[in-house]
Amino acid sequence: MEEVDNKQVIFKGYIERPPKETDMEIKVSKIKLRAPKGSGAILVKNLYLSCDPFMRGRMRDFQGSYIPPFVPGQALEGFGVYKVIDSENSDFKPGDLFSGLTGWEEYSLICRPQQFRKIQQDNIPLSYHVGLLERVGIIGPLLTTRAASNSHFLFCNRRYYIDFLFDSNFLASVFFGMPGFTAYVGFFEVCSPKKGEYVFVSAASGAVGQLVGQLAKLHGCHVVGSAGTSQKVDLLKNKLGFDEAFNYKEELDLDATLKRYFPQGIDIYFDNVGGEMLDAALLNMRINGRIAVCGAVSQQSLSKPQGIHNLYSLIIKSIKMQGFLQHNYLHLYPRFMEHVISYYKQGKIFYIEDMNEGLESAPAALAGLFSGKNVGKQVIRVASE
Amino acid sequence: MEEVDNKQVIFKGYIERPPKETDMEIKVSKIKLRAPKGSGAILVKNLYLSCDPFMRGRMRDFQGSYIPPFVPGQALEGFGVYKVIDSENSDFKPGDLFSGLTGWEEYSLICRPQQFRKIQQDNIPLSYHVGLLERVGIIGPLLTTRAASNSHFLFCNRRYYIDFLFDSNFLASVFFGMPGFTAYVGFFEVCSPKKGEYVFVSAASGAVGQLVGQLAKLHGCHVVGSAGTSQKVDLLKNKLGFDEAFNYKEELDLDATLKRYFPQGIDIYFDNVGGEMLDAALLNMRINGRIAVCGAVSQQSLSKPQGIHNLYSLIIKSIKMQGFLQHNYLHLYPRFMEHVISYYKQGKIFYIEDMNEGLESAPAALAGLFSGKNVGKQVIRVASE
Repeated sequence: MEEVDNKQVIFKGYIERPPKETDMEIKVSKIKLRAPKGSGAILVKNLYLSCDPFMRGRMRDFQGSYIPPFVPGQALEGFGVYKVIDSENSDFKPGDLFSGLTGWEEYSLICRPQQFRKIQQDNIPLSYHVGLLERVGIIGPLLTTRAASNSHFLFCNRRYYIDFLFDSNFLASVFFGMPGFTAYVGFFEVCSPKKGEYVFVSAASGAVGQLVGQLAKLHGCHVVGSAGTSQKVDLLKNKLGFDEAFNYKEELDLDATLKRYFPQGIDIYFDNVGGEMLDAALLNMRINGRIAVCGAVSQQSLSKPQGIHNLYSLIIKSIKMQGFLQHNYLHLYPRFMEHVISYYKQGKIFYIEDMNEGLESAPAALAGLFSGKNVGKQVIRVASE
Repeated sequence: MEEVDNKQVIFKGYIERPPKETDMEIKVSKIKLRAPKGSGAILVKNLYLSCDPFMRGRMRDFQGSYIPPFVPGQALEGFGVYKVIDSENSDFKPGDLFSGLTGWEEYSLICRPQQFRKIQQDNIPLSYHVGLLERVGIIGPLLTTRAASNSHFLFCNRRYYIDFLFDSNFLASVFFGMPGFTAYVGFFEVCSPKKGEYVFVSAASGAVGQLVGQLAKLHGCHVVGSAGTSQKVDLLKNKLGFDEAFNYKEELDLDATLKRYFPQGIDIYFDNVGGEMLDAALLNMRINGRIAVCGAVSQQSLSKPQGIHNLYSLIIKSIKMQGFLQHNYLHLYPRFMEHVISYYKQGKIFYIEDMNEGLESAPAALAGLFSGKNVGKQVIRVASE
């Protein structure tokens, strides 16, 4: 069978800082649109690719971890939506659409495609399956298009966490896909919200934050969000229905800022950023407050995380501060899908995507995540079916 | 009526560091052993006084808070066990024993003695009522032997916390009495222990820690404690039944220490100290671990609390970290009393007191708390009924 051109986003080499556009390059290689006979593999055409903060972790040369780093000279991989072109696996039929890990390239050969999720088409934009509706976390042996058959990811079992923790710089890898479901379980299960409560969301226009804020509003809460540009602040207030929003970069004293927006204090803080904002929020929590610790994007560029100084607030205000992974709540996924799809179809929630066109735009889009350039969930459209 | 001598521990003046013995002095004044007619007051003889870390907060000249500072030139006040000598209040009969806030002196006139707890004598050492069985927290208007009728403590309502928080140095005042009940609700309600889990307790021979460890053992957990002298370590292992214990002052690398004592990781960390030990524990928690944030004694001498750097562990290991006040669990107090008294009478738990004799010993005893000099709950015996 004839080979066709396969445009790829190639990982150039390991870095110890946030990614730049020049850490990746576009290359065209050749690929046969065929899964090898009897291999169990599938050959897919990639339609949408997701830019996620956790990908930075794989750009470091850290061999001791159970998340394998990217291989220099080969294409990156990440979450995507793709169509099956050829299949040697009875669970995957040509023409079917799936979401899951794939390569940053036009076509990918996926060797062990278990745990991928078939997409039922139902008037939801296809790209939402790497954002709002994304389900596949990285659990169990890492699924990869390349030779990583002995690799395991850090969630395989309890022990792997311990190993993982020996490297305290490896913050980036705690960021996963599934932003919509993360927002859902983080808000409803971790924060136990009550109608009328005061909710603060940081990185509020991001992939997770935007849904947290909208769910909180639908639940009857008062919601304030922080973001890093006036365009995002505008979006929060005028498109996503937040009660208030502010640009944290224009604030000199975050404690004073939060006192201004929450004169009564904060019942729920949905923390996507860590660092100074978390410290300021701790000072402004109300008694029996809850903090969902979802991410620490402000800390990703630091070799040592900033210290948090106000934890004594936990004691004097009986605050619960909880980290979570959506992985522990998978039984709620059907309920999440039902609720969110219904809200979406009723026009009660929006999901803001920052859609870049073409693989050529992918390096800049990924790099932009780390300077807050994206507005909403960052996605690359590789092809339109 | 004739006046009698009343030996007192006088507060000399405000400090911005941990208390020293010389910050207090012994003085003898005169007192009538009579409550003024129609005053509603009671006149009591003090039997036992409790030394508590929170008293340091009242030795600072911080007028903006709702906990009034001590008055220079007057006696300190704290929790105690006392006998009613004279009463103008129908709830208090001469001869009755109570525990509650009182003066650091032989006799105290208590002006508004609501919320005090009557002691039923039942073969439990009287002094345990300011330790193991102490119930009276400071809630509502501050009860005081002196003129403080307009004073409110920080727990009066939600708003007061916010005011309180403007002063981030005021750590000490988050330490209250009720160590036994604090241990009980902190362990059972906040930590949700399961048989066979791995439990770490810091300041393990202290007023709270010693009971946490014993309750954890009775619950079938594996328990390791840290303390600051070899005498305390010995006590933990040989008297209180901890599986292991170590002297943190002899350890150069707390992370390595915890890995040695918890090769499988920690399920429950009962944190009485904060600071570096908390940071090390965060690195060694297991998935779904729980941290009860009970105190931060290591931070009390610092003008700014140390930063905690390892909070990302909360995310990647789905850890719950919860501050708490026993105040929110008072409905469990009867169950606590029943369990703990029963365990005590069966010889299944011990409560270690560091008993100093006489008011003269009180200044050194209080100061000693802040250098870890006390072994067990620090109590002063003023008189034996």
